[in-house]
Amino acid sequence: MKRVTMRIEFDDSRWIGWGKVALLDAIARDGSITTAAKSLGMSYRRAWQLVHALNTMFQEPLVQSDRGGTDGGGTTLTPLGQEVVTRYRRVEGRLNMLTQQAFHELEQRLAPPRTRRTK
Amino acid sequence: MKRVTMRIEFDDSRWIGWGKVALLDAIARDGSITTAAKSLGMSYRRAWQLVHALNTMFQEPLVQSDRGGTDGGGTTLTPLGQEVVTRYRRVEGRLNMLTQQAFHELEQRLAPPRTRRTK
Repeated sequence: MKRVTMRIEFDDSRWIGWGKVALLDAIARDGSITTAAKSLGMSYRRAWQLVHALNTMFQEPLVQSDRGGTDGGGTTLTPLGQEVVTRYRRVEGRLNMLTQQAFHELEQRLAPPRTRRTK
Repeated sequence: MKRVTMRIEFDDSRWIGWGKVALLDAIARDGSITTAAKSLGMSYRRAWQLVHALNTMFQEPLVQSDRGGTDGGGTTLTPLGQEVVTRYRRVEGRLNMLTQQAFHELEQRLAPPRTRRTK
């Protein structure tokens, strides 16, 4: 199995999936939305949209910039942002184990991989 | 929480997510790809593409038509198809419980729902 991804939908417009969490992780690591976006191969515009969605989802923001505008003086996760990432990763780890167990046998019955067709 | 969805990726081109499993469930219930597609609000073309992907994913098909062409004499899941659905639903049930537990408190901290903006 390559991986299993999950998306937690709070309602029709608010959800957290692997892309948003990967961005939060990258921001925590890089201290910058611009650098985080680059490291994920994501456009800055897209990253900013996701950060905006994340920062208006809860009563408090998940991402904060220390000074002035975005990336002005370093960008970090708030305690709430860190908690969202931690809880998501914890559930994801359990999901990975459950899926490995449940699909281990079925995976042995996958068809042989096909060579890529040229369109 | 409205729901949590998951996608199991076996490799870059082969994966099972909630849409494919919903289609398998509907085919088992309706005995017809056409009826299943309608009940899901899915085009017949899209349903057929998903069935094709599912039927070439493993060494055996997951969906079989009893007679002649597709939907000729009733369409059912093979034992392998039933097993894929059962295992997916079992993992999904566990994932739901884990997510409810892990995000129960955070959900209380969601922002008040906004009224829909007119573009």
